[in-house]
Amino acid sequence: MPNARWEGRLLVVGTGLIGTSVALAAREAGAQVLLSDADPAQAELAASMGAGQPVAMGELTPDEPLDMVLIAAPPRAIPPIAAAALRSKLGRTVTHVGSVQTHPLVEVELFQAPVRRFAGGHPIAGREQGGPTRAAADLFVERPWVVCPTPSTDEDAVAAVAALARACGARPVAMSPEAHDLLFARLSHVPQLAASALAASLADLAAADVALAGGGLRDTTRIADSDPALWAEIVTANHTAVAAGLRRLAEPLSTLADALEGDVPDAALDLVRDLVERGRAGRRLLPGRHGGSPEPVAVVQVAVPDEPGRLAALLQAVAALGVNLEDLRVEHAPGQPVGFAELSVQPAKAADLARALTAEGWLVVSPGTPG
Amino acid sequence: MPNARWEGRLLVVGTGLIGTSVALAAREAGAQVLLSDADPAQAELAASMGAGQPVAMGELTPDEPLDMVLIAAPPRAIPPIAAAALRSKLGRTVTHVGSVQTHPLVEVELFQAPVRRFAGGHPIAGREQGGPTRAAADLFVERPWVVCPTPSTDEDAVAAVAALARACGARPVAMSPEAHDLLFARLSHVPQLAASALAASLADLAAADVALAGGGLRDTTRIADSDPALWAEIVTANHTAVAAGLRRLAEPLSTLADALEGDVPDAALDLVRDLVERGRAGRRLLPGRHGGSPEPVAVVQVAVPDEPGRLAALLQAVAALGVNLEDLRVEHAPGQPVGFAELSVQPAKAADLARALTAEGWLVVSPGTPG
Repeated sequence: MPNARWEGRLLVVGTGLIGTSVALAAREAGAQVLLSDADPAQAELAASMGAGQPVAMGELTPDEPLDMVLIAAPPRAIPPIAAAALRSKLGRTVTHVGSVQTHPLVEVELFQAPVRRFAGGHPIAGREQGGPTRAAADLFVERPWVVCPTPSTDEDAVAAVAALARACGARPVAMSPEAHDLLFARLSHVPQLAASALAASLADLAAADVALAGGGLRDTTRIADSDPALWAEIVTANHTAVAAGLRRLAEPLSTLADALEGDVPDAALDLVRDLVERGRAGRRLLPGRHGGSPEPVAVVQVAVPDEPGRLAALLQAVAALGVNLEDLRVEHAPGQPVGFAELSVQPAKAADLARALTAEGWLVVSPGTPG
Repeated sequence: MPNARWEGRLLVVGTGLIGTSVALAAREAGAQVLLSDADPAQAELAASMGAGQPVAMGELTPDEPLDMVLIAAPPRAIPPIAAAALRSKLGRTVTHVGSVQTHPLVEVELFQAPVRRFAGGHPIAGREQGGPTRAAADLFVERPWVVCPTPSTDEDAVAAVAALARACGARPVAMSPEAHDLLFARLSHVPQLAASALAASLADLAAADVALAGGGLRDTTRIADSDPALWAEIVTANHTAVAAGLRRLAEPLSTLADALEGDVPDAALDLVRDLVERGRAGRRLLPGRHGGSPEPVAVVQVAVPDEPGRLAALLQAVAALGVNLEDLRVEHAPGQPVGFAELSVQPAKAADLARALTAEGWLVVSPGTPG
């Protein structure tokens, strides 16, 4: 699937993970890319990776406007940069890739900058750890890239942002800034705070006690490894929607805490059962491997000695049996020299796979195969 | 590592995932195992897997006491079964494998049963999906198995439970029932409810909107797939500790919601930053691959076409380069025919691995390797 061509002149302001990845992708699509960063060493680093040519924003003159200015900076830095670019007509279109959409728009209007050529975007891609050295041209391939026009945005500015998204291999999805912010408060900002609050609630425990936790807690708190300063800006920039989302999460938990204090009536039992049931319903909405609803899968768990090549040998055995993996997880218990590979396969394939792997000498833990 | 022998007579009451797995492990260790279940078909199913001999509890007479009665039933079913077994001296020692420890003890005392020979246990193992068909003799290998004596428990009853745990390959860890329940409210019961509440908060969204979620939300809500009836019993059986844990989680979220409503002062920014920072601190306590604190790892992300054998080929290439994987995750974006394998390796190995895999034609997405 070759990406669409995009042969204009692009200025990327902010050369972290996302900005540098856009720059790499745009260059592959044919763009001429200029790189700017508040820390010139970061722009140099991105340039050394082949992302484009470093410039100081002050050196740029609007005599020959750029086709696009893309701002990949923390939320608070976006409005002043966008306003300056719009007022000086530095670029025909100005966009950003922030996790919040309404706030920069409002701020840019406060700067009395013309917003007709300003259309924010939000590529749904990233990692917990940032920085240009983790960037990649294909970070956005087949990922959604939400584009957020307002009624007053010029149509061709919106089209230009969507074209850049496509040139990065992404699938543009249009949504109003308000709808975006309400949705991502719920899909991203509140889950981040929930994971952080859960992980923070462990901080006073002894490490030896926390070592008794099962694998579920690790999954539930994985995103709590994120950047505090960045998240403080994201959350405060989307504060109203996040506050509502936090209440939607905290209130059932507080209600449940009330019901569980003192003598516990059967109503509390019903309350917990209902919450877990609604959680299952919400979880079924999450995308599965190929988009849409998750398909049912069966899990075959296999013990894998912790030696180079054993996992590869297992997966080769699976492939040789003609079974395609829907998903794969590898789990290690604390202090254990053996890992467990959880092979998710179509339910109809599970029993045969377990039998065949057992016959080949693999220790299949589940589905249970009697000794 | 052969497990310890255990050659006594064991009655397992409740032949779900955990009970059947204990039965399979005990048989391998040399035990004679009897199986009982409220649903005789479940006991027959476990017996057909080689877990032991099905019996009806009423048929058993205490003329020749069993060495151990192990109750692997939902929390509410444990006390009456334990009390009956203790009063009739059906087994020399009675134990259970429930997620809550104080409640069954208190209930058994209410039944006026002698508790000197009653010592609860909690093996830290399991899966979201239960049932005997997922059972395995090595489910407990190298996992912690918390054993919970009280000051009045006979020492040799505690030793007998620990010996059975060792025979299953587990590592027994002693803890008072009260300490256990306080700790697991925080490590397990509250995280379960948090994941359920978060997933439940999505239930009114359109599937097309939820499809825009990143991978973090899937991890954070993974354990929300659990059994509502079972969790209702666990949570209400440990209600005081869970209520306290829920408040510890909900209160910072509510405080944050207050701070984020209306005009947002810098104090709100500090509050978020502080929460995310404390979350990172808590997260550092979670066990890494080999127990203890997680070691720093670098992640090399590689695109893997969705075809049988490609992942195996990748891991074989990694092994051929002499690099050991600390962890492995496979991620698929919605609607995407290419998956991404995230290879966690020692930081010192990452750059060389990325270079070598690229040289072999793999598409290494990160750390960024310029085109």
